[in-house]
Amino acid sequence: MAATVMDEVMEKTREQVDMEALGRAARAASRVLATLTTDVKNQALLAIADELEAQSQAVMERNGLDIADGQAKGLSDALLDRLLLTEQRIAGLAADIRRVASLPDPVGAEMDSRVLPNGLRLSRRRIPIGVLGVIYEARPNVTIDIASLSLKTGNAVILRGGSETLRSNMALVDVIHRALDRVNLPRAAVQYISNPDRAYVTQLLHLDKYVDMIIPRGGHRLHELCRRESTIPVITGGIGICHLYVDDSADQEKALDVIENAKVQRPSVCNALDTLLVNRKIAQEFLPKVAARLAQSHVELRATPDAYAILAQGNHGATVREAGPEDFDTEWMALILGIKIVDTLDEAIAHIQEHSMDHSDGILTNNWANAVRFVNEVNSSAVFVNASTRFNDGGQFGLGAEVAISTQKLHARGPMGLEELTTYKWVCLGDWHIRR
Amino acid sequence: MAATVMDEVMEKTREQVDMEALGRAARAASRVLATLTTDVKNQALLAIADELEAQSQAVMERNGLDIADGQAKGLSDALLDRLLLTEQRIAGLAADIRRVASLPDPVGAEMDSRVLPNGLRLSRRRIPIGVLGVIYEARPNVTIDIASLSLKTGNAVILRGGSETLRSNMALVDVIHRALDRVNLPRAAVQYISNPDRAYVTQLLHLDKYVDMIIPRGGHRLHELCRRESTIPVITGGIGICHLYVDDSADQEKALDVIENAKVQRPSVCNALDTLLVNRKIAQEFLPKVAARLAQSHVELRATPDAYAILAQGNHGATVREAGPEDFDTEWMALILGIKIVDTLDEAIAHIQEHSMDHSDGILTNNWANAVRFVNEVNSSAVFVNASTRFNDGGQFGLGAEVAISTQKLHARGPMGLEELTTYKWVCLGDWHIRR
Repeated sequence: MAATVMDEVMEKTREQVDMEALGRAARAASRVLATLTTDVKNQALLAIADELEAQSQAVMERNGLDIADGQAKGLSDALLDRLLLTEQRIAGLAADIRRVASLPDPVGAEMDSRVLPNGLRLSRRRIPIGVLGVIYEARPNVTIDIASLSLKTGNAVILRGGSETLRSNMALVDVIHRALDRVNLPRAAVQYISNPDRAYVTQLLHLDKYVDMIIPRGGHRLHELCRRESTIPVITGGIGICHLYVDDSADQEKALDVIENAKVQRPSVCNALDTLLVNRKIAQEFLPKVAARLAQSHVELRATPDAYAILAQGNHGATVREAGPEDFDTEWMALILGIKIVDTLDEAIAHIQEHSMDHSDGILTNNWANAVRFVNEVNSSAVFVNASTRFNDGGQFGLGAEVAISTQKLHARGPMGLEELTTYKWVCLGDWHIRR
Repeated sequence: MAATVMDEVMEKTREQVDMEALGRAARAASRVLATLTTDVKNQALLAIADELEAQSQAVMERNGLDIADGQAKGLSDALLDRLLLTEQRIAGLAADIRRVASLPDPVGAEMDSRVLPNGLRLSRRRIPIGVLGVIYEARPNVTIDIASLSLKTGNAVILRGGSETLRSNMALVDVIHRALDRVNLPRAAVQYISNPDRAYVTQLLHLDKYVDMIIPRGGHRLHELCRRESTIPVITGGIGICHLYVDDSADQEKALDVIENAKVQRPSVCNALDTLLVNRKIAQEFLPKVAARLAQSHVELRATPDAYAILAQGNHGATVREAGPEDFDTEWMALILGIKIVDTLDEAIAHIQEHSMDHSDGILTNNWANAVRFVNEVNSSAVFVNASTRFNDGGQFGLGAEVAISTQKLHARGPMGLEELTTYKWVCLGDWHIRR
């Protein structure tokens, strides 16, 4: 049985994809989706959740083939775990879809309504963006996640997942299509590029006639590729070199808690701490405390020479190395922390402006003026005073959902929720008005 | 005297431009600008207005050389008129700058403030975008216009104007620099690429390390170039194929007024009417009236065969030709109007969805249900009921200023005012909060 399924699926992944037709179908579907009521969109979401639970065996079977291939290719256990779909994880995905259904629908709301002096009634109405192109790596849950957020906001979506979970993703899209059939919505609302040839990524990035926004979810290279190749606006982000600056006025015990949380709670994510800047006035006293605290979690420290000199003396149990030239431009994604001593707040801010990726940066201080200056002068997507960088997250910020974390300047910054998958149009209601 | 000035300027335009240095200087200046109070920014604007009036002779002298070159090259009188700076026009520019100074400053405002359940205080604070790159053609007043809107919003800007007004633009930037000196702000707040080599446009479009947003102001080709080449987010727009659909329920006399206004009031701009769609039920009666009214302004009609058959009979005085295959995909910028008969509202909406550039589209009707459907289903940047498309304009919409008209989906749509030259950051104030 498994071999038959595999053959069928592998057959399909070798078929050429007509990207023009895919784009045209997505655009047509987007016009249907844009006018749906919230009720209808929620019915579609609930149908997907039901169908996913009903088809969980079939999905796990396809996922099993992906996992087997991954084992044969020698993928790491950590990566294989990210690819794996279990009964419990599928139930979790279904619950997530139902939660998206329960969220408020941003589409259709009117903002900034006004009557112009000539009597013309003007407002901005929130509408879907249209067609999204989402390129992602590894985890198959992104397929369900993005599809449900797109549907909720009335957008059609073209998905392109990683080749490691090709069969799992196609099984999930199959589930979505059955559910869309049940509620009489076009299958082209959610389409998947089933041929893993990379040429299709490039084609997608040039489909500006039909696609309105590209969201890459993956590493630095994918974002670079999209920025360089795409003729469609790209939301870049998800990569952070995150800083905390410890002012000499900081409460040191509390600062240790925040630093530990920012570095250790989940070191593999983009809002985890990468570089600690410490004011020279407290460096001699505070750095050994940092080392002792982080040694408990086996964090390796990469310190500038002056910080290294202080840390090398102590008996704190931490591994300390001198920082190399790249170490302050590295997103660690691991239990490693760069440490630098700075003379002043100005030096701290200058270091952050130079090395930050505009993701999450904070100050730990009890000095009012320094906190104000830091917040005014550091323009990262999220700026923190006396809080862990780990809070830069759609769930933590109460957005109800997170599509991506943007670190660019246009459209959206920081965690993107449902509202950030919408745009607006001006609605202008006249009484046969002409311009004088 | 004139020859000497010309030589100096021409010498400078042959110098190589170090775009990396330009970018770095712009980024540094943007950090200074971002923290200025509104008062300081307004002082800079008023200084520019004063300096412009004081230096008007020098500016006109340089402009005269551009005009002389233009005449020698055989530029049209209409284009030469657009390039020309007179005492009166310079006074108008100075008045515009003072008006920008009087507008409210969007920077620094906090929005969506909330306290999370754990006590973390969160808000979104409006900040400048950073560094803008603006590429424009012809009219030298854009130099002053964009520089003052950028300064007002705390953005640094790199300008690249058309070669026809190179000397005029450089004279105006010189005025701006003198004014910036007077108020002790960095000259790099406003920089101009003085070498007309097109290679520098490409370099600017790849300067993503320093430039946050590209605004092209020009024709279709310039927008295409930016979309294709730029690794920086681009605001596209300013090009419209604008439609009005005349429903069979429309008040025909009033509809004629709106159609005439949309087509004739200023035919060379992007929100002027390009295509008129008329419901078949009223075509026989209404089309001759349209022809008679527009004949007064010498508008040429390009009609589909069925509309042509009706119009060919009449004695309305208008020039009528059968529409060619491209005629419904052309932005006329002239006294020409495409005319098509449609059977239904659906056909009208489908035509608009297929041919519109998402700029300005409207319905003329007295039928409530049709108006509602049109507004719901047409997602152009501005959608009109019983009003002229000519209203899609920052000034008309009461925005106080207009940087460009965006027809894309991300960041901004329709007229872009000062607010659309800003972005936001999340400000997160904790009491030593850690994530659980």
